[in-house]
Amino acid sequence: MKKIRVGAAQISPYFFDKEKTLEKTCHYIREAGKLGLDLVVFPEVYFCGYPFWRGGVSVRQSTELAAKMIGSAIRWNGEEAVQMAEVAKKAKVNCVIGCNELSDQPGSLTIYNSLIVISREGRVLGRHRKLMPTHSERVYWGMGDASDIRTFKLDIGTTGACICYEHHMTLLRAAMAIKGEEIHCALWPGWWKVDGHLGAKTGEPGSKTCDIESAIRQHAIENQVFVISSSWYLKEEDIPPELKEVMRYNLAVGGSCIVNPAGIIIEGPVFNQETIVHTEIDLGERELAKAYFDGVGHYSRPDLLSLRIQDQAWTPSGPKKL
Amino acid sequence: MKKIRVGAAQISPYFFDKEKTLEKTCHYIREAGKLGLDLVVFPEVYFCGYPFWRGGVSVRQSTELAAKMIGSAIRWNGEEAVQMAEVAKKAKVNCVIGCNELSDQPGSLTIYNSLIVISREGRVLGRHRKLMPTHSERVYWGMGDASDIRTFKLDIGTTGACICYEHHMTLLRAAMAIKGEEIHCALWPGWWKVDGHLGAKTGEPGSKTCDIESAIRQHAIENQVFVISSSWYLKEEDIPPELKEVMRYNLAVGGSCIVNPAGIIIEGPVFNQETIVHTEIDLGERELAKAYFDGVGHYSRPDLLSLRIQDQAWTPSGPKKL
Amino acid sequence: MKKIRVGAAQISPYFFDKEKTLEKTCHYIREAGKLGLDLVVFPEVYFCGYPFWRGGVSVRQSTELAAKMIGSAIRWNGEEAVQMAEVAKKAKVNCVIGCNELSDQPGSLTIYNSLIVISREGRVLGRHRKLMPTHSERVYWGMGDASDIRTFKLDIGTTGACICYEHHMTLLRAAMAIKGEEIHCALWPGWWKVDGHLGAKTGEPGSKTCDIESAIRQHAIENQVFVISSSWYLKEEDIPPELKEVMRYNLAVGGSCIVNPAGIIIEGPVFNQETIVHTEIDLGERELAKAYFDGVGHYSRPDLLSLRIQDQAWTPSGPKKL
Amino acid sequence: MKKIRVGAAQISPYFFDKEKTLEKTCHYIREAGKLGLDLVVFPEVYFCGYPFWRGGVSVRQSTELAAKMIGSAIRWNGEEAVQMAEVAKKAKVNCVIGCNELSDQPGSLTIYNSLIVISREGRVLGRHRKLMPTHSERVYWGMGDASDIRTFKLDIGTTGACICYEHHMTLLRAAMAIKGEEIHCALWPGWWKVDGHLGAKTGEPGSKTCDIESAIRQHAIENQVFVISSSWYLKEEDIPPELKEVMRYNLAVGGSCIVNPAGIIIEGPVFNQETIVHTEIDLGERELAKAYFDGVGHYSRPDLLSLRIQDQAWTPSGPKKL
Amino acid sequence: MKKIRVGAAQISPYFFDKEKTLEKTCHYIREAGKLGLDLVVFPEVYFCGYPFWRGGVSVRQSTELAAKMIGSAIRWNGEEAVQMAEVAKKAKVNCVIGCNELSDQPGSLTIYNSLIVISREGRVLGRHRKLMPTHSERVYWGMGDASDIRTFKLDIGTTGACICYEHHMTLLRAAMAIKGEEIHCALWPGWWKVDGHLGAKTGEPGSKTCDIESAIRQHAIENQVFVISSSWYLKEEDIPPELKEVMRYNLAVGGSCIVNPAGIIIEGPVFNQETIVHTEIDLGERELAKAYFDGVGHYSRPDLLSLRIQDQAWTPSGPKKL
Amino acid sequence: MKKIRVGAAQISPYFFDKEKTLEKTCHYIREAGKLGLDLVVFPEVYFCGYPFWRGGVSVRQSTELAAKMIGSAIRWNGEEAVQMAEVAKKAKVNCVIGCNELSDQPGSLTIYNSLIVISREGRVLGRHRKLMPTHSERVYWGMGDASDIRTFKLDIGTTGACICYEHHMTLLRAAMAIKGEEIHCALWPGWWKVDGHLGAKTGEPGSKTCDIESAIRQHAIENQVFVISSSWYLKEEDIPPELKEVMRYNLAVGGSCIVNPAGIIIEGPVFNQETIVHTEIDLGERELAKAYFDGVGHYSRPDLLSLRIQDQAWTPSGPKKL
Repeated sequence: MKKIRVGAAQISPYFFDKEKTLEKTCHYIREAGKLGLDLVVFPEVYFCGYPFWRGGVSVRQSTELAAKMIGSAIRWNGEEAVQMAEVAKKAKVNCVIGCNELSDQPGSLTIYNSLIVISREGRVLGRHRKLMPTHSERVYWGMGDASDIRTFKLDIGTTGACICYEHHMTLLRAAMAIKGEEIHCALWPGWWKVDGHLGAKTGEPGSKTCDIESAIRQHAIENQVFVISSSWYLKEEDIPPELKEVMRYNLAVGGSCIVNPAGIIIEGPVFNQETIVHTEIDLGERELAKAYFDGVGHYSRPDLLSLRIQDQAWTPSGPKKL
Repeated sequence: MKKIRVGAAQISPYFFDKEKTLEKTCHYIREAGKLGLDLVVFPEVYFCGYPFWRGGVSVRQSTELAAKMIGSAIRWNGEEAVQMAEVAKKAKVNCVIGCNELSDQPGSLTIYNSLIVISREGRVLGRHRKLMPTHSERVYWGMGDASDIRTFKLDIGTTGACICYEHHMTLLRAAMAIKGEEIHCALWPGWWKVDGHLGAKTGEPGSKTCDIESAIRQHAIENQVFVISSSWYLKEEDIPPELKEVMRYNLAVGGSCIVNPAGIIIEGPVFNQETIVHTEIDLGERELAKAYFDGVGHYSRPDLLSLRIQDQAWTPSGPKKL
Repeated sequence: MKKIRVGAAQISPYFFDKEKTLEKTCHYIREAGKLGLDLVVFPEVYFCGYPFWRGGVSVRQSTELAAKMIGSAIRWNGEEAVQMAEVAKKAKVNCVIGCNELSDQPGSLTIYNSLIVISREGRVLGRHRKLMPTHSERVYWGMGDASDIRTFKLDIGTTGACICYEHHMTLLRAAMAIKGEEIHCALWPGWWKVDGHLGAKTGEPGSKTCDIESAIRQHAIENQVFVISSSWYLKEEDIPPELKEVMRYNLAVGGSCIVNPAGIIIEGPVFNQETIVHTEIDLGERELAKAYFDGVGHYSRPDLLSLRIQDQAWTPSGPKKL
Repeated sequence: MKKIRVGAAQISPYFFDKEKTLEKTCHYIREAGKLGLDLVVFPEVYFCGYPFWRGGVSVRQSTELAAKMIGSAIRWNGEEAVQMAEVAKKAKVNCVIGCNELSDQPGSLTIYNSLIVISREGRVLGRHRKLMPTHSERVYWGMGDASDIRTFKLDIGTTGACICYEHHMTLLRAAMAIKGEEIHCALWPGWWKVDGHLGAKTGEPGSKTCDIESAIRQHAIENQVFVISSSWYLKEEDIPPELKEVMRYNLAVGGSCIVNPAGIIIEGPVFNQETIVHTEIDLGERELAKAYFDGVGHYSRPDLLSLRIQDQAWTPSGPKKL
Repeated sequence: MKKIRVGAAQISPYFFDKEKTLEKTCHYIREAGKLGLDLVVFPEVYFCGYPFWRGGVSVRQSTELAAKMIGSAIRWNGEEAVQMAEVAKKAKVNCVIGCNELSDQPGSLTIYNSLIVISREGRVLGRHRKLMPTHSERVYWGMGDASDIRTFKLDIGTTGACICYEHHMTLLRAAMAIKGEEIHCALWPGWWKVDGHLGAKTGEPGSKTCDIESAIRQHAIENQVFVISSSWYLKEEDIPPELKEVMRYNLAVGGSCIVNPAGIIIEGPVFNQETIVHTEIDLGERELAKAYFDGVGHYSRPDLLSLRIQDQAWTPSGPKKL
Repeated sequence: MKKIRVGAAQISPYFFDKEKTLEKTCHYIREAGKLGLDLVVFPEVYFCGYPFWRGGVSVRQSTELAAKMIGSAIRWNGEEAVQMAEVAKKAKVNCVIGCNELSDQPGSLTIYNSLIVISREGRVLGRHRKLMPTHSERVYWGMGDASDIRTFKLDIGTTGACICYEHHMTLLRAAMAIKGEEIHCALWPGWWKVDGHLGAKTGEPGSKTCDIESAIRQHAIENQVFVISSSWYLKEEDIPPELKEVMRYNLAVGGSCIVNPAGIIIEGPVFNQETIVHTEIDLGERELAKAYFDGVGHYSRPDLLSLRIQDQAWTPSGPKKL
């Protein structure tokens, strides 16, 4: 299979509402199926809501909102995931879905900024937890561990996925290559404008200072992969009324797009519309890229530089060999 | 010293002519001094000539041209370097200069795609050899080793430098951060247009598919450094007559520019003129960047991912502890 | 077993066509069996094609041709190899086969200039990757590592094999002796005429300046081994029409031959015919050679000079103990 | 200095007669000077006599002949050497001279199969002792040690020199390259015919089985050096009457020649005449060779294979750091 | 155990015939057992033949004879040794056996002038290779290294063993003392007459100029050990017909004997008969000797003189720590 | 100078009487001159008396006798020595003379069992103190130190000398070779019969168990030197009357002799007469010996075994660099 169709679901969920979000998600998986997609990617903690209010609320408020996030989080292989997997099987489309994931450590209620991967055979293949939440995100989410440094075997190829600023974690991106990714999914809250420094950002369609652009182009080049980059588009009416005041960053202007292994954006970015940004890609192009630059092959220097990847997961009862 | 002035010398050498190239280089170092620059960067194998003919000549021709490159190469601390250091001292400007560097292994005539770093105290601090030449470049140059994974201590801060596609070597870029670079110099042959795959490129001013742009922006972001990116500008009359036919790639259209630690291009890119692209930068801005995203600090996961850097150089008589 | 029959298959493959090349290879293995050979050697990247066009195409073309080479490469123990092993078992002949070998590093599409060794028990014993491609070959192939410095145990004796200019890598040839080779296979693209310098060569049957002759004679002497030297013979009609123009070196004139441990050519060189160059050799002759000159025994000075052989292979995720 | 003139003195000494041999040597140094040579090489233990009788005398006889060799041996910087150096200075020619060299270890009367190097500034630069005498030669000569693994700095370039079968010692030849040799001198007793195995040889002008040819051609290629190969020519009347019967190998038929760095014989071999075989060579040709194949540079794999060179000389009172 | 019975097997092997020699050896081990011996010593390269023809054949002949020696050599712990060990176990006698030993370095066919030590528990304890062959012996055998400077732990005491002229190597004899030998085995080809110089010798029973006598007496005194000295006796009919002419030295007249720690010959020498020369010795006598003169104790001056023993063995792939 | 005449003065001194002993010594030096000797050697502590009474007297007696020895001892370069040197100059004979030597350490009255060497140029060249007195000798003499490990340059060659059981000190004998001795002097009290162990000895002319014989023969062989061995002959009337009872060992029966480098006794031993045992020797014979066996040259293994010689002398005020 060389030519496949891939897309990014540029939508928003129902904040804190698992049921309605599940319904909307299933709808979009079916839509992707109708478009003949082999893979559809949903944005960062799409299920059920990214804390766009971060930095705009008091400690008390943020704690109460966190509890709401916990209340609407799903388990990576819980009933909601299983239900989505059934729909994906019928629609014949592989899915990568950002979500608030509830810990499966007995006694814990920590949530993680995770993504789950569902194969079109109808199986939930696993999860990836964001290794390091960004700035005030650290108020809401725990951190992943070595078990989250992984790729997923899909029928269309080995698929890697990172969340937002993980695309600036040089060694994690290297790990994706070493784990053999052929297709990369990038999950973001939405295109933005960087003003002065990385923390100073506001949503701005088409901004030339948005670091998403260089991150996904460079990742495509360095790893010789296609990148499907998925961002929120948050309509005014999707914002919970009580949060309108504090969701001041308003990052969710869209910006989803698709990049080829030469780092060229071949579809999108699309702004300010709820849609599935999609196109056909020819995986055979990777051979041309690799022939010229193979970052884990002829253009590497493993005699000089190599990546040490932790081989055990952390658990309260000790490290667990992976 | 927080505010400094930096520049990229966007020029071309006299092909295969050490003497005239030395003269021109010294002239431009003095010009940099007149502009009050603290650092000036010359492009990839500027001294004395990049094989723009690669892919266009027979094995016999390329071998003979290689011999010319050998004949006009300099030693990293040879007389030409020392002479440039003297000029740099007078001009009070630190210099990073791409060059064909002749091996100092007894009996070897291998050349390397190297850069040398000269401090404005008048000392040649050392060299960095490109770790892996690109595609048919491998015909001309040897490969660097672990001793080339290094930064340089200048009065203006710790300075790292990579050459062309080294900016796509993920682990090398990570090494630059780990070695503490604060200012990064990027040496290229010139801005280009990528068409289809990385190997299919032609010089085109301002092309939006040039992978230089994403590489230097992303490097600035991931390492939280300023990047001074220096490219050739090769005028028609600079091409040796006998090579006009075969220098078909014509990449040397300029494109030098300067990027801040948030990945924003703050000066340039400038095309089609021989000039020093320069500006003032405020190193203090790195603090803002680091506060939000510190790739070797709070935003890293050294418990999970770390870089193994070889600690010995390779020599024909055995490894040499660094 | 002292007296054995050995041969060099002086043929050419179907360029970029795995299926037809596999068929032809199996045919020649059977032919070797009919001749009663105990060992047959196929030339450098015989399977499926050496880039005779190198130095004659643009970077874009060469990248596209490289992608074709990748597309028709085999894995060292992939299905094609297994199929050849089955034929070898029936024909009762050990095989050494040059091939484009596709990397088994996940995510990599690098190919190597490799040889695989198949025992007549029907097992693919392993591979050797050329340690350093020559000149513009570096555009197409990655480099081997320490795991490629090895010999192979066959029923007829310990067998070493090097590819083309590896026969000029002094320390590699020494390693072959230390690893105990008793029979040496030399894989080449074809006899040539060297004119002035090593890079200036054209195919010329019987040329007295061809460096193959001194390389294989000297290797036989220094290591006290028999050498089976196998070269391509490429008929006009075997060249893909679209490459006729650019395959200007035309090295594949044959020249296969067999050398005894005293450095005397005892069979061949044969030119300009597709054939198996073969003869009977008496391994007992090595005792006479060794009695007079044993390069890893009485005629060595290990107290003064010894070979340091790297004991780990390089991988992107770190060195791997061999 | 790129173009120089080099030659091989194809002559024989007066057996066991230091005085007359010294006179003859000085004569030929002067002749070399008249020919405008920059370097002249005399053959293996030319001064004063190689044991061509080996294998043809009893233990008692060989011991008595050994005593004669001891009696006519010279010290490396003794009066005979100093006298030759004076002549060399006047003649303006660098000399490499094979000789029986008497030990300078107090109490020892061991002789070595050595060569001494004399610069045309009139200094005896040092000696090289054959590391391992061949077969019955071991009856006559001691073995060199780590101090004998060296090159010599002459005004014409770094010069290495090996004696006879040292050219089959792979690691020693590698050491010559690592020690930076640019010009190589090869000292032999004379061209021969190898029949069956290396120990079965007789003098035969122009024999195609003589292993000297492949040794010097291959050495030139592997080390990218010019080789001046010097052999004895022993006229009937030069043989001491009492040894005519036993000097049955009669190897000294000449065969001196000169090889370029591409392994091509560019002068000679000359047989059956007492002469100086000489020609002009262009050291610049090494750049072409090195551009294509640099055995201690771009075409080496020091990360995999390197040479361990003993760093101390052996003495009866303990190792001596070099 | 203070009183033990020791003997020297004064016999000859079947030249070049491993099978028959093995049979004869086993026979004599059994004979030693019947005599109630605790230790029996076989002479220098008894298994299967010393080159008594040395100095009497051409280089070609000697190479061919060397190949025969290689062909009939044994590995120190090969099947022949194991078989002898089984016989030794049954016969309850420790054995020291001189042999042509084939190298265990992969790829080497060098033989060594070795001895192997077999314990009466039925184990082959190890080997000692002659450190330096004598005169034309150097044509046939390699040299031992630091691993050969050793003693062997037998139930009867620590046992050292040297071969022939090793008894004139002062520092090796010192090493035997330092390694703690209590019983010393001396292996020789046979008693001789020295005429004028050491190289001028012929077999002569009882000659007073034979240097064996002073060597073994002095060794007994200096090291305060018993010496069992074993020599060949070669009957006319044991000489291979084709070698009768050239085995001119005829050293193998016997002369085996036993010496006490005061340097007094207490048994033998016996000449011209095939026999086991044997006697009872009282190891308690060493206490008397040591009380008066302890060469590694009260009568030494380690503050002034000490022996530096190399602590690594030499191998082609580098020194190996012992 | 190849042929020289050497002798051993087989005489006895006047016990405890410096004056008369001096006179007698000068007489014998003159006698040696008349015989045309180039070198004459006097026995162990000849000047003025060896304690033949040792083991036969009480502690009180031995202390009183020791005081007598001190009283009649000489300084190595004192007036007696100078007087002997004048005589030696006139007689044109080099002398080695055993003596009781009085310490030159301020405040000490220790005596040493020493020998002094006088050149025929009339200079006292130095002394050698016995490194370790034997058994009850330790009651009388101190021990030498590193400054006593030396040879002496005489016009006839480098001369070494050891005293009595120093000839059983393996490493000291090795040191003599390393220090370059060409002629060796051995000083003894007289030939003896060893009965059972080394301490059980009585004077017996011609005894075949005397360890002197093997010691000097073996030393000649191992060091390839001539040995002049000098012993006392003590006539009944020379024994001080009061000591007749206790001088029970009666060792002084003579036995002086001369040995060639092949270990063959070429003059003597002579018993029971006061005489100078002398002969002509041909130093050229050493070349034949060395050609076959050179213990510090071709027949040594300095890579494995070497002698560590202390490089400082011991003094009460600390070590003194030599």
